[in-house]
Amino acid sequence: MMKPYLLILICLFLRITVSAEPSINPIPIKWELGYAKTATEAPSNWIPSIVPGAVQLDIAKAEKYGPLCYAENWKDYRWMEDQFYTYRTSFSKPALTSGERFVFVSKGIDYQFTIYLNGEELLSQEGMFTPVLLDLTDHLKENNELKIQIYPAPKLYPSPVDRSQASHSVKPAVSYGWDWHPRLIPLGIWDDTYLEVQPANHIDDFHVNYTLNEDFTKAELNLQLAGRNLNGLPFVWTLKDDKGLEVLKSEGKTNLSFPNPQLWWTHDHGQPYLYTSTIQLLNASGKVIQTLESKIGFRRIKLVMNEGAWNEPKGFPMSRSVSPAQVELNGRKIFCKGTNWVNPEIFPGIMTRERYNDLLTLAKDANFNILRIWGGGIVNKESFFELCDEKGILVWQEFPLACNNYPDDAHYLSILKQESASIINRVKKHPSLALWGGGNELFNAWGGMTDQSLPLRLLNSQCYEMDPSTPFIPTSPMMGMGHGNYVFRDLNTKEEVFSNMARAHYTAYTEFGMPSPASVEILKTIIPKEELWPPKPGGSWESHHAYKAWVGSTWLCQEIIEDYFGTSNSLEELVANGQLMQGEGYKCIYEEARRQKPYCSMATNWCYDEPWPTAANNSLISYPSIPKPGYYAVKNACRPVLASVQLSKFKWSEGELFFADVWMLSDLPKDLPSGKVKIKLVAGTTELVLLNWEYNPMKANVNQVGPTVRCKLPAWSTDRFKVVLEVEGHPEYNSEYTLAYQPRSVESKRTTPVMNQ
Amino acid sequence: MMKPYLLILICLFLRITVSAEPSINPIPIKWELGYAKTATEAPSNWIPSIVPGAVQLDIAKAEKYGPLCYAENWKDYRWMEDQFYTYRTSFSKPALTSGERFVFVSKGIDYQFTIYLNGEELLSQEGMFTPVLLDLTDHLKENNELKIQIYPAPKLYPSPVDRSQASHSVKPAVSYGWDWHPRLIPLGIWDDTYLEVQPANHIDDFHVNYTLNEDFTKAELNLQLAGRNLNGLPFVWTLKDDKGLEVLKSEGKTNLSFPNPQLWWTHDHGQPYLYTSTIQLLNASGKVIQTLESKIGFRRIKLVMNEGAWNEPKGFPMSRSVSPAQVELNGRKIFCKGTNWVNPEIFPGIMTRERYNDLLTLAKDANFNILRIWGGGIVNKESFFELCDEKGILVWQEFPLACNNYPDDAHYLSILKQESASIINRVKKHPSLALWGGGNELFNAWGGMTDQSLPLRLLNSQCYEMDPSTPFIPTSPMMGMGHGNYVFRDLNTKEEVFSNMARAHYTAYTEFGMPSPASVEILKTIIPKEELWPPKPGGSWESHHAYKAWVGSTWLCQEIIEDYFGTSNSLEELVANGQLMQGEGYKCIYEEARRQKPYCSMATNWCYDEPWPTAANNSLISYPSIPKPGYYAVKNACRPVLASVQLSKFKWSEGELFFADVWMLSDLPKDLPSGKVKIKLVAGTTELVLLNWEYNPMKANVNQVGPTVRCKLPAWSTDRFKVVLEVEGHPEYNSEYTLAYQPRSVESKRTTPVMNQ
Repeated sequence: MMKPYLLILICLFLRITVSAEPSINPIPIKWELGYAKTATEAPSNWIPSIVPGAVQLDIAKAEKYGPLCYAENWKDYRWMEDQFYTYRTSFSKPALTSGERFVFVSKGIDYQFTIYLNGEELLSQEGMFTPVLLDLTDHLKENNELKIQIYPAPKLYPSPVDRSQASHSVKPAVSYGWDWHPRLIPLGIWDDTYLEVQPANHIDDFHVNYTLNEDFTKAELNLQLAGRNLNGLPFVWTLKDDKGLEVLKSEGKTNLSFPNPQLWWTHDHGQPYLYTSTIQLLNASGKVIQTLESKIGFRRIKLVMNEGAWNEPKGFPMSRSVSPAQVELNGRKIFCKGTNWVNPEIFPGIMTRERYNDLLTLAKDANFNILRIWGGGIVNKESFFELCDEKGILVWQEFPLACNNYPDDAHYLSILKQESASIINRVKKHPSLALWGGGNELFNAWGGMTDQSLPLRLLNSQCYEMDPSTPFIPTSPMMGMGHGNYVFRDLNTKEEVFSNMARAHYTAYTEFGMPSPASVEILKTIIPKEELWPPKPGGSWESHHAYKAWVGSTWLCQEIIEDYFGTSNSLEELVANGQLMQGEGYKCIYEEARRQKPYCSMATNWCYDEPWPTAANNSLISYPSIPKPGYYAVKNACRPVLASVQLSKFKWSEGELFFADVWMLSDLPKDLPSGKVKIKLVAGTTELVLLNWEYNPMKANVNQVGPTVRCKLPAWSTDRFKVVLEVEGHPEYNSEYTLAYQPRSVESKRTTPVMNQ
Repeated sequence: MMKPYLLILICLFLRITVSAEPSINPIPIKWELGYAKTATEAPSNWIPSIVPGAVQLDIAKAEKYGPLCYAENWKDYRWMEDQFYTYRTSFSKPALTSGERFVFVSKGIDYQFTIYLNGEELLSQEGMFTPVLLDLTDHLKENNELKIQIYPAPKLYPSPVDRSQASHSVKPAVSYGWDWHPRLIPLGIWDDTYLEVQPANHIDDFHVNYTLNEDFTKAELNLQLAGRNLNGLPFVWTLKDDKGLEVLKSEGKTNLSFPNPQLWWTHDHGQPYLYTSTIQLLNASGKVIQTLESKIGFRRIKLVMNEGAWNEPKGFPMSRSVSPAQVELNGRKIFCKGTNWVNPEIFPGIMTRERYNDLLTLAKDANFNILRIWGGGIVNKESFFELCDEKGILVWQEFPLACNNYPDDAHYLSILKQESASIINRVKKHPSLALWGGGNELFNAWGGMTDQSLPLRLLNSQCYEMDPSTPFIPTSPMMGMGHGNYVFRDLNTKEEVFSNMARAHYTAYTEFGMPSPASVEILKTIIPKEELWPPKPGGSWESHHAYKAWVGSTWLCQEIIEDYFGTSNSLEELVANGQLMQGEGYKCIYEEARRQKPYCSMATNWCYDEPWPTAANNSLISYPSIPKPGYYAVKNACRPVLASVQLSKFKWSEGELFFADVWMLSDLPKDLPSGKVKIKLVAGTTELVLLNWEYNPMKANVNQVGPTVRCKLPAWSTDRFKVVLEVEGHPEYNSEYTLAYQPRSVESKRTTPVMNQ
């Protein structure tokens, strides 16, 4: 392990600061990669390296490994986590005019590394989120060799081989193996990295800090420049609106007032308005030395008490009221609909703006206004946040702690302090940032941390000092929030999602899952033909998380699916029924959470995407960005306005008294006129109209309770039927729900789900 | 309001630092006091002032007010909160040798003030906990006049006249009126204050920081000196044991190892071992310039998860587990028995070491090992903490926030930062410090703060930065802790304390009250003869909190007392029955909390003392330090070892099946042999032996469950009976409980308490 104090001294000496701004004039580097078993051994072989990326991908390419996602090929990559890697590149001394500096810039190197120029150690660092800005000028020779030695993946101990190995480092725990992520630990240069000639005077980092006044009619701005030799140098800063018109200008003043700013809103509550901020650094004679451009959005975000939450608890002895979970954006309480985002790649170094854009476009289309960036994974690259800013999607950013007991240890705390400072400094600029979170499930038994854990007290302190206007919570779930369930019906009590949710009482459902198999097309690309049918534990199905992933037979859950619909005759049938149940289950939770508004203020499912093609998973999107049918079900459940029913169970029998509570749900920030909903049951080609409900005019952002529809179920010859809601003149509000059905003639040999336990 | 930035600049310029050490050579000051309606008006009259004290006490003395505690005299003092006060004193220029400085030192001036020397403003400060160290040297004339102008009590608004007026200042809220504290807001110089000639080189503040290794075999020490012109000056530091033998010495080294330190324990778990630390500052020729002596105790304190708490909650959706409340001292989990300490004086400026000692001696005698210093009051003077260190009593110190919504306001935050820094820097030196608390009941509806409130995030950050090894909780109750009830039976549900506690499930009962009237002797000193009997609302009884204090007829609760024992025929009878019920109610809670060990780890009643003689209150001690009968009941319930019964209700009838569960309780840190308990009922002179229980050998710090004793209650002619437990050969473990009894012959016209609701 490193000596933290030495590291800090080196960092100070070499002037490492955060630089999230694009380079003026980057010089591309041609990298080579080698590896060895020990730190002192020289690599015997050098292969081409693609940067940013991961050492594993370079080796796989050079050594012609089988496709990572196919069958159990991933196991061939396992040895790579324990090697020492060296990146190298050569360059001639550049011509520098007076005062110019030649710098090495990297936005992220994963995880522990030492940088050498011509054999001289210039920097040793632990931490993938703290960018490197190394001034090479005074160390240059005519011909130069830059080397970066990367240490093996950090592990607390050799075994058990699981996520707890990551509990003493600021390395995302997910890559140590999760129920939907193979054990593969990325190493290497994972974000933009280049050489650059910089002028003698240089802005390394620029912030526009602001405070909005109470009624949002004024922003008080403070311009904050950091860099080299900036003292007394003139600068010009301008703010342009979204049409490119200049609306504010400063010549050297750092404090300004900006009247009547357009506010940044989530896409469903207004426009995610962005201004363009441009700072130009001038030399003494007024010539522009450097220009930095970025976007800025003005918004105020708070986490306030949920409506009704102060009325609890009741009676003595009395504990505290729950933690607040209601997001208030620009003074408006908004219901957060969203999802848990996980690394979309096993090796996030290859993530690009385009890949982020595909996934974020789908997220916006799904009517999501918030993403929880789960603490088991990385903090995404800049383009992710830029796209969230543009698309009007809030980001709940967790620090890289998950399901582990991170220690009160001086070394760990020093690295966490460094890494969190880098993360906060970079991400706080984004209007989409809604919430800092300490990490995932840290206050539950399997996390084992408490309010007293120093890493979480440190993170609270860091966020308070550096970004006090953004809410901070130490973990999710907090008191009053709920995580789970992750299956259609509980594996022990067999209670279904319908009754479980109806009796749940939480301020926010911040994780809930509903598994489904991947589509047959995807399964065929990852499971060898001979294993494809029937699915079974061991081999590729298990490697791709269909078996022994969480508990029970997750995530395929074949016996639950077949308990409702009978033994599947084909892979196609199994997949179709599993995907249907995912959609119906997710709809139930999103819509029930919305019915519980305003006490409830958030619903974010587990999980959105996945880092490789799973065979079965809770995700809505198959790798890389292929929506499952469940995605469309959730998209419908999250529409601003819809007709909805509260169902009590999934399977119904002929002659049984069917009932369902009808609702109109609205998160729309404006009033709506009255209307009419037709509720009918549809089985095959048979239709049965139950009711025409005339609902009253709807207040902005308020739901309306309707009647309970009831009917004795007729004899149908199908194994399923639909509840269909049609809103007159507003097909965009229509909804439908598919339920399992059992005709009297069919002798049931299946377990009936146990309800209301 | 003040300009905080200006204040900070002034403070820096004038070198204000903390000086908790005694002065070498204090020059006493003769003060005079005057007051005026406005800031600019000069006082028309000057009266003698006693410092430390309060302006109100000086005026009352000079203007011959009636005794504060008698009848409703306190109302005559109310006007004083709105005046501008000026302290003044005169002195000649002292003779100073080369480099010597002449300084003004005050450990506390309450609350907002400006200090002038010869008409020149030297300091303006808001905050009573930040000491003043003013170097006057360069401002001296031949004849000098020092003036301190004190502003009126801070109020957010003129009305309502209640504690919420204090919600934007770091002024203890209690003096704005509480259910046991009259509305009287102290102002003035409230802690030691003097002039002093100091050498050119001077230690203002000295800390011995230490870390204990995992098995307590070594302490790593760091000596931290702050002051004037200390650079490069030699010093000698020694550590002496409790026999005065030198065990460690440093000549100029600031980092030292100390092998095998004697640990500091609470009095019930070991010896509160204190070493003597002496630092001597030398000049270049080796002569001692300054000597500072203080005590130091070595201990490690943590707040860890309560046993069994990780098993909750169960089922999905799942929230977090509770906050930890188990105190671990030097690696040992200890059950905390204690009480809530409130200001022992309305005007805490007159508190002395002797007064603290009286109360703390009683606290130790009551078997208390922890005091919660409630956030509605002040942070006590140094002698309080020194005595807790000596007596081995833990201190849970809250910051001065209580039952208010303290704002996310820049000015308030800046004062809170300054004041909390001063408090932490002073108090963290004491081994008795167990826990920092943000304040009282801030996360309940009447507090209205949340996890997001910036004042509490600031306090976490301050404590983390300045004293990370001491636990911090933002408020009490936290999740899993309980506050209340405060009456023998619930005012709405009429559920008695017995059944309420039996079904309670909390990690810590950090506030619970049980009212009783004051003794007749005390009542006669505060209630005029003509009002004394019968008690009634309005007038002196109400002024002294017998009526309209909290809710219902608190705190006298005459109707509850008489519901059990019939209409009182005299003040003596009412008081006796009320005091009996306080004792029995408190015993029930302390002993039930102990029975719930290890899930439960703490019981601290509301409240210990009181700031003036109340007519009725939850306190165990009447003003100034007169134990009530309830004190002795609690003292018995908190013995390290005792025989105990769990009762189900207070009143029993002839012929009814009486039952009670027998226990042996032990918090003793060592094993005990087996023994025998005789359980009997005693009514008047009649005895009925129910059982001789032979209990097994007892493990250290573990309770033992015994049998349930049962019997049909015989006919007695009394209105009460006792359950008596006698432990053979160990009368110090004996216990007894008094219960109300109703013979069949007596027709009841009273309400029967409702049970098990």
